[in-house]
Amino acid sequence: MTPEDIQKPVSRRRFAGLLGLASASAAGAVLTTGAGRASLSANAEEAMAGMSDSDHTATTSTASTGGTAEMTADEMDAMHEAGIKSFPAPTSGLGGQPLEYELVDGVKVFKLTCDPVSWEYAPGQFADAFAYNGVVPGPEIRVTEGDTIRVLVTNNLPQSTAVHFHGLVVPNAMDGVPFITQPPIKPGETFTYEFPIRDGNAGSHMYHSHHNSTEQVTKGLLGSFVVEPKDPSTRPPFDVEYTMVLNDGAIGGYSLNGKSFPATQPISVKLGQRLLIRFLNEGQMIHPMHLHGMPMTVIAEDGYLLERPYKRDTVMVEPGARYEAIVEATEPGTWAFHCHVLSHAEGQKGMFGMVTVLIVNE
Amino acid sequence: MTPEDIQKPVSRRRFAGLLGLASASAAGAVLTTGAGRASLSANAEEAMAGMSDSDHTATTSTASTGGTAEMTADEMDAMHEAGIKSFPAPTSGLGGQPLEYELVDGVKVFKLTCDPVSWEYAPGQFADAFAYNGVVPGPEIRVTEGDTIRVLVTNNLPQSTAVHFHGLVVPNAMDGVPFITQPPIKPGETFTYEFPIRDGNAGSHMYHSHHNSTEQVTKGLLGSFVVEPKDPSTRPPFDVEYTMVLNDGAIGGYSLNGKSFPATQPISVKLGQRLLIRFLNEGQMIHPMHLHGMPMTVIAEDGYLLERPYKRDTVMVEPGARYEAIVEATEPGTWAFHCHVLSHAEGQKGMFGMVTVLIVNE
Amino acid sequence: MTPEDIQKPVSRRRFAGLLGLASASAAGAVLTTGAGRASLSANAEEAMAGMSDSDHTATTSTASTGGTAEMTADEMDAMHEAGIKSFPAPTSGLGGQPLEYELVDGVKVFKLTCDPVSWEYAPGQFADAFAYNGVVPGPEIRVTEGDTIRVLVTNNLPQSTAVHFHGLVVPNAMDGVPFITQPPIKPGETFTYEFPIRDGNAGSHMYHSHHNSTEQVTKGLLGSFVVEPKDPSTRPPFDVEYTMVLNDGAIGGYSLNGKSFPATQPISVKLGQRLLIRFLNEGQMIHPMHLHGMPMTVIAEDGYLLERPYKRDTVMVEPGARYEAIVEATEPGTWAFHCHVLSHAEGQKGMFGMVTVLIVNE
Repeated sequence: MTPEDIQKPVSRRRFAGLLGLASASAAGAVLTTGAGRASLSANAEEAMAGMSDSDHTATTSTASTGGTAEMTADEMDAMHEAGIKSFPAPTSGLGGQPLEYELVDGVKVFKLTCDPVSWEYAPGQFADAFAYNGVVPGPEIRVTEGDTIRVLVTNNLPQSTAVHFHGLVVPNAMDGVPFITQPPIKPGETFTYEFPIRDGNAGSHMYHSHHNSTEQVTKGLLGSFVVEPKDPSTRPPFDVEYTMVLNDGAIGGYSLNGKSFPATQPISVKLGQRLLIRFLNEGQMIHPMHLHGMPMTVIAEDGYLLERPYKRDTVMVEPGARYEAIVEATEPGTWAFHCHVLSHAEGQKGMFGMVTVLIVNE
Repeated sequence: MTPEDIQKPVSRRRFAGLLGLASASAAGAVLTTGAGRASLSANAEEAMAGMSDSDHTATTSTASTGGTAEMTADEMDAMHEAGIKSFPAPTSGLGGQPLEYELVDGVKVFKLTCDPVSWEYAPGQFADAFAYNGVVPGPEIRVTEGDTIRVLVTNNLPQSTAVHFHGLVVPNAMDGVPFITQPPIKPGETFTYEFPIRDGNAGSHMYHSHHNSTEQVTKGLLGSFVVEPKDPSTRPPFDVEYTMVLNDGAIGGYSLNGKSFPATQPISVKLGQRLLIRFLNEGQMIHPMHLHGMPMTVIAEDGYLLERPYKRDTVMVEPGARYEAIVEATEPGTWAFHCHVLSHAEGQKGMFGMVTVLIVNE
Repeated sequence: MTPEDIQKPVSRRRFAGLLGLASASAAGAVLTTGAGRASLSANAEEAMAGMSDSDHTATTSTASTGGTAEMTADEMDAMHEAGIKSFPAPTSGLGGQPLEYELVDGVKVFKLTCDPVSWEYAPGQFADAFAYNGVVPGPEIRVTEGDTIRVLVTNNLPQSTAVHFHGLVVPNAMDGVPFITQPPIKPGETFTYEFPIRDGNAGSHMYHSHHNSTEQVTKGLLGSFVVEPKDPSTRPPFDVEYTMVLNDGAIGGYSLNGKSFPATQPISVKLGQRLLIRFLNEGQMIHPMHLHGMPMTVIAEDGYLLERPYKRDTVMVEPGARYEAIVEATEPGTWAFHCHVLSHAEGQKGMFGMVTVLIVNE
C-alpha cells in the first residue's frame, strides 16, 4: 500500500484467499515487486536470527542488526516502504479456511490428513512443514453445540501422531494423548475420533498434535476449532469475524495464520460493524496483540464468556489460550495491528512477522 | 501407565509420598524400568539443552533435537511409551509436605534449616540444590488467620540468606530483605521471624529466599505458605486440594513440586469431587498450565478472592503469582495436565518436565 | 540506606528529581561511595551478560555468574550492602517529568525533539540512546479529556522516525505509522500531530516511535501520556501518584523510568495515603511487579476502568500494556518493590535493574 491508498481502503472479504490472491491484490493493493521480496526475505532472516539467539531480548536483536546501522535514513525508509507496498503479498497456500463435512446418519464427518509439505510463509520463503490437509494452520473446523462429530485422521507423516481437541470436553478415550488415552496413530494409519459437542462448550478452541508436540505443532499441525452456540443469543452479537492463529515456531517464525508480513491477510470491515476477533496462540511465547485506532472488548477467554467483559487496546495471548474480542469499527482508515513484542514485528529493514492491518471502510 | 490402565485409574491420596513411592506405584502404575530411566535422562538433558540456548524458542528446541530426526516412528513411540509407563517414577525425596509446628505460649513455632543437598529431580538425575529442611520445594507451612507464628531459620549454607514471606502482610522488620529490613542471616546463624497472620490474608502464598535470590531460589529455597480462613465459609468449598509449585530453575529444570515428569505426582480425585488447585510460580518464566478434560474455575489470585470467578482450561501463572482454581471432577479418566509452552513438556524422546495427570476415579 | 534508616524513612516528593538529586540524597539516604559504584557496575555488567545470553533462563544466569561462586558470604554481603547503601544513587538526567505546553488559540502545544544522547542509566554507566527532549523516558505528556493538542516532533536523529500515541483514539492520519498513515519524519524534519482528546479516553497511555521501532523504542524513544478525566469523580480517588515505565532494552537493560537500581527513584508516601501507580511496559518481556508489604488494587487496564477491580501483590505488565493500581499505604516502613523475574532484579553481587522501594512514612 502507498500512503495514498489509505484514503480509499481496499474492500476485502474474510475469505479473500478463496478468491485467489491475484484478484485480492488487484482490488486495491500494490503487488509485491522484486525489491519487496528482497526486503521481506531480509526481514525474515533477521527475525530467524533473532529467534535463534534469544527471543525476548531487545539488546540482542539490536546487536544482531548492527551490520545495517550504516544504512542511510533514505535507504532504511525505502526498505520499510517496499515491504508495506507489497502488502498483502501473494504466496501459495492459505490455511484456516472452513473444512467441509459430510453428514452421515446425523453425524458431521470431517477428514484430516497429516502430510509433510513445503509451506510458503512469506514470499519466496518456504519451510518444511507438517500440515493438516496441506495447509498451515489446518482448515477451521466449525460445529454447533449438540452436534455429534467424527474426525478421521490419516497420518501420512514419517512420525506417529495424535490429535488433541484443546478446549473441548470429550470422553477420555477421545482426548488424543498417546499412551494415556490412545495408541499413537502410526504412519499410514487412520484413527477415528467421535464425540458429541457438549452444550456450554461454545467458543473458540483448537485442535493440534499431542505427540512429539514441540516439533509437530511448531511445524504446523494445528488449527482452529470453533463451536457455535445452539442459541446465538447466548453470546454477544457481531457482524463479521476473523480467526487469528498466532505462532512463533518452525513455520514462518512469527506468524499470523501461517503467514508472515507482508504475506498476512488484512482484515476488512465497514464503518459501524462489530468485528469478532478470535485469538488463538499455538506458539510458545506470549503475544500481546495491539490494535491501533479503537479498543477491543474481551468477551470470552478459552471459550468461556466473561461475566464482566473488559476493554483493552493490547490483548495478551499466552500459549494454549484463546481470547474473543469485539471491535466496534467506529474509526475509518487502515489501522496497524501487530504483536507488541516489537522484535516480533519490525526490524531495521521493515515490518515482518506478526503484523497485519484492520481496514475500516466508510 | 499403559493405555489399559486408564480404564481402571489408580487411587492415590494427596500425600501419596508419605506412604512411600513403592506402594504408590504398586497401586496401579508400572514401575520404571531401565529403559524408562534412560528415556527420562535423555529427555532431561534435552530440556536442559533447550533452556541454556533460548527458553521460549521452538525453532531452537526443534533444531537442538535434530540429531534424533533419524529415529523411526516406532523407535520414537517406544521412548514416549517407556516414559509414560514409568510414571509415577520413584525418586528419593518429596517436598511440599506439611511442616509440623510446636505450640509455645499460643504461638505456632516452625523450624526451617537451609542446607546444601543433592536433589533427585528425576530418576537418576541429581542437582546441587539449596533446600529448606532438605526438600525442594520446602515443606508447606499452613496456618490460620489470627494465628501468631514464629519461624526459626537456621542457615547451614555457605552463603548468607533471608526469608521473605511473599503475599503475607507482615511488620516491616519481618519482611526478609537484607540491608533494607534486617541483616542477612550469616552461615551458622539462626534468625527468628515472628508475626501475626492478619485477618483477610487467607489464601495461597509463598516463602523463599530474598538474598542472592536469582541463585538461591532457582536452587530450591522456596516453599508454599497456605493461610486457612478463620471462617471456612468465606471461601468456596472443596473436597480435596493440591498445591502445585512451578519452577524452571537450576533444580530439575522445568518442574512441578521439585520433580520432572515422570517423577511428578499424579493428582487423584473421585468423580463428583471438587478439587482446589493452588498454582504457585517460583520460576522465572510464564507457565500456562493446561488441564485436559474439564475446565478450571479461577477463584483467587495472589490469595485474594475474585468477585467474579472465571473459567479457563489454561491458567497462565507468571513468576511470583498464585492462582487458586476449582475443578469440578465431572469427567472420569486420566487427564494430561501440563504446561502449554510445549518445550517445557515434551521432546522428541517423550514427555518431561512440567507434566502430570489428573485421575478422576469413578 | 542502612538497616537503621528504615526506622526513620526519608521523605521524598514525587518529583524529587526536580529538586536535584544531591538534596534528595541528603534528605536521608547515604550517598554512593566508590565501592558502591563498583558494585553497581559489576551488577549491571552481569545483567547485560544475562540478557545477551537468554533472558528468562535462571540456569544461564546462575551459570554466567559461576566465576563469583568463590566469594565468601561476607564478601557477597558487602557487595549487596554497598549497592543498597548507595540507593538512591545520583546519575545525570531524569526522564518522565511533566512536559510544559503553550496554549495557542485553545490548543495545547507540546514540543518534542528526537536526539541521540548518552544516557546515564546507572552510576557511571552510559548507553547510546535515542531520546525525546534528551531524557529517557521522554517527558510525561499530561492532558485532559476534551483538550485539543498539537505535538511538534523534530527529528534530529540519523534515522527517520514517527510517533504513535499508544492507547489514544486519534484520526487515522495522526496514528504515526510510516507508509500506512504518514510519511516518515526524515532527519531534520518536523512533523505536527494534532488531534482532540476524546471523552472516555482518560487513563494511562504511552507515546513512542513506530518506525524501526525495535531499535528506536529500546534505545529510548518512549514516554508516558496521561489523560486526566474531565470529571475526576469518574475515576477512583488517590492522594499521590507515580508513573513507572518498565523497560528491558538497549538503554539500561532492566530499568524503571530509564534507570537501573540503585539509580532508580524511591516512591514515598505518608501512612494512610492512597497511592496510584501507573505501570507502563515499553519493553519486550513480561514484568510481574511485586510490591512488598501491602496489596495493590488494579483499577484500570490500558486506561479502561475495570468494573470489578481486583487485588494483587504482583501485577504482571506485558509489553504494550498499562495497569493502574491503588495502594492503600497502611503499613509503615520501607518496602522492596521489584520485578519478580528474579534475574531482572538481583545477582550474586547484589540488586540491580528493576528494583525500587515504597517508603510509607508515619
